[in-house]
Amino acid sequence: VAYSQYKQNKADMKEIVQLRNYMAEPITPIDQLEKNPDDMKTQMELLILRIQAEFCKALEKEEDQAWDDEKTVDDYDFDNDIFLPSPEAKFKVDRWQRKEGGGGITCVLQDGRVFEKAGVNISVVSGTLPPAAVQQMRSRGKKLENAELPFFAAGVSAVIHPRNPMVPTIHFNYRYFEVRDKDGVQWWFGGGTDLTPYYLNEEDAKHFHLTLKHACDAHDDTYYARFKKWCDDYFYIPHRGERRGVGGIFFDDIDSPDQQSAFKFVTSCAEAVIPSYIPLVKRHKDDAYGYHERQWQLLRRGRYVEFNLMYDRGTKFGLHTPQARYESILMSLPLNAKWEYMNVPKPNSEEEKIMKVLKEPRDWLNLEKAQRAAA
Amino acid sequence: VAYSQYKQNKADMKEIVQLRNYMAEPITPIDQLEKNPDDMKTQMELLILRIQAEFCKALEKEEDQAWDDEKTVDDYDFDNDIFLPSPEAKFKVDRWQRKEGGGGITCVLQDGRVFEKAGVNISVVSGTLPPAAVQQMRSRGKKLENAELPFFAAGVSAVIHPRNPMVPTIHFNYRYFEVRDKDGVQWWFGGGTDLTPYYLNEEDAKHFHLTLKHACDAHDDTYYARFKKWCDDYFYIPHRGERRGVGGIFFDDIDSPDQQSAFKFVTSCAEAVIPSYIPLVKRHKDDAYGYHERQWQLLRRGRYVEFNLMYDRGTKFGLHTPQARYESILMSLPLNAKWEYMNVPKPNSEEEKIMKVLKEPRDWLNLEKAQRAAA
Repeated sequence: VAYSQYKQNKADMKEIVQLRNYMAEPITPIDQLEKNPDDMKTQMELLILRIQAEFCKALEKEEDQAWDDEKTVDDYDFDNDIFLPSPEAKFKVDRWQRKEGGGGITCVLQDGRVFEKAGVNISVVSGTLPPAAVQQMRSRGKKLENAELPFFAAGVSAVIHPRNPMVPTIHFNYRYFEVRDKDGVQWWFGGGTDLTPYYLNEEDAKHFHLTLKHACDAHDDTYYARFKKWCDDYFYIPHRGERRGVGGIFFDDIDSPDQQSAFKFVTSCAEAVIPSYIPLVKRHKDDAYGYHERQWQLLRRGRYVEFNLMYDRGTKFGLHTPQARYESILMSLPLNAKWEYMNVPKPNSEEEKIMKVLKEPRDWLNLEKAQRAAA
Repeated sequence: VAYSQYKQNKADMKEIVQLRNYMAEPITPIDQLEKNPDDMKTQMELLILRIQAEFCKALEKEEDQAWDDEKTVDDYDFDNDIFLPSPEAKFKVDRWQRKEGGGGITCVLQDGRVFEKAGVNISVVSGTLPPAAVQQMRSRGKKLENAELPFFAAGVSAVIHPRNPMVPTIHFNYRYFEVRDKDGVQWWFGGGTDLTPYYLNEEDAKHFHLTLKHACDAHDDTYYARFKKWCDDYFYIPHRGERRGVGGIFFDDIDSPDQQSAFKFVTSCAEAVIPSYIPLVKRHKDDAYGYHERQWQLLRRGRYVEFNLMYDRGTKFGLHTPQARYESILMSLPLNAKWEYMNVPKPNSEEEKIMKVLKEPRDWLNLEKAQRAAA
């Protein structure tokens, strides 16, 4: 019975409690999660706990392999016949509580061999939305009473800054929101995954976009095209007239066709992160590079900081929340960044090549051509 | 006659055209400046041209001395019996025009021996204020018609990031503003000078504040105390609960007791920059430091970036202006910055000492004690 139940849950994309696999204990007390297994609040918390753990472990595996050549007989565990992992190659895990309700788990790996700074954060919070936040949601089209309203939010968010400039930075975030007013509860999902390469590799960009497209297509075949454009529009640095990276998908306010289907869609997207990104890490983490490429990477990381501090809604919303855990919000910033006055890439250089794509987003999967052919 | 006129001008703090001393040609055509010598627009443009040149030359002198040990006989100019200056130790000068009216002169010295990045910028611009900017001024208490209004603005602004962590970063900005509505022209001055040390040196902080206080006291003996507090309040990073540095002075909307007196006050402040700062550079530019101090400096530079991109009114106003020259606005950002997750200074360390001052601003000149004694 247990096994067929497990299989059924998998087929339904229903999350079950897997305490031993998570990076830390769930935020909500376990008995409460077990009492309400079908509540979307439970389902989302279990999803983000699982996604966080799977992603951290996938990154640690890359990091650990990179430390292999450092290993000596002292690191060998004879009882279990394995090499002990390098402590520097492991995520530091901080489980934190929020006074107003809820909390989070922040996992950060800093100064690794493969990853210069990797942050994977989940938070499950509830409380009362200040009127300004309600106002902002109303301005986005939500029909909500104009008052302080109780809310629930659960999300996973990660930014990975690799050391090798040939490995792109990835960011993703998937979140679920509930607000209650006199007419009842409103809920919606939001999220996205996007890639920021320092040097353009078209195959990588195509692989990344294709993986995201597959995750979208399984649910709604209009999603990828819409959310790809939304991503290009969102990650835009107006004062420079350039995008943060080569895009991906981005969406908000998803509340259709129904809650279970929307959850399955978000699950597919979150599960697509590893297959979209880890192959690029494996492919390029040992690529050759020199001082020049590192300098360029640092300059581009400066642009990443500009976008996140000036335009990212999540960062601004987070930091303007009283008693915000700013260390978790700002873990998205790179370990190192650089600002040079008037740095202009040389004509026909590799640096100019990526700049062109950032100024003029590409149709990576040739969707327009395919549409024209179909018409 | 010429000499007594010159002496009189000096006594009046009246600016005269000194073409040969400026970093580049004035922004306004010279005949126009010469036709309206007493117009405040002319006076302010000449002031900022002079301040820019004097400050750049004072910094170049420090830089040049640092390159002395590199000099060989090839760098010797036998005709003039001097060593040629090192080209790396000189400001790069960009004179730029703005399509809508006016322009600026941006001077940047990057990757020097003493200064990692030094930017000294002037701009003299005119045009039409968008309604949002007028609205913002009205909300600050200005009685202005609610419409698009013609304006004039002239200002000098500088940020100096030295290489040695024992030398503080300095920022200053002095500006003059005119707006015309149906009731006539309104004008005001704004500005300030503030210091951001990486390690606390109380003598330095006192010298800095005392120099600014002298500049203020000559005009109004309530200015220093008021503008010191304004500075502490302004350079505040709310999400971290800390200030950017040890303060200085900051003011806006100065339109009393009369235009000439306000101009003289701003002139005194701008002239106080060199004596407040250059002695600190000379004192510490060859101080010993190591990897640890450099890392701390880079982390603190990350905070500088956070303040400038998220909270600084000038940066935000500038970057949101259509066709802003973002390279001139962002020259304030350090060449290198760092963000570490959960960096907390060790108890009783030098790093903790400066953090305490940033969380709790000090009364550097013991004014409160002096006031109590006087009462």
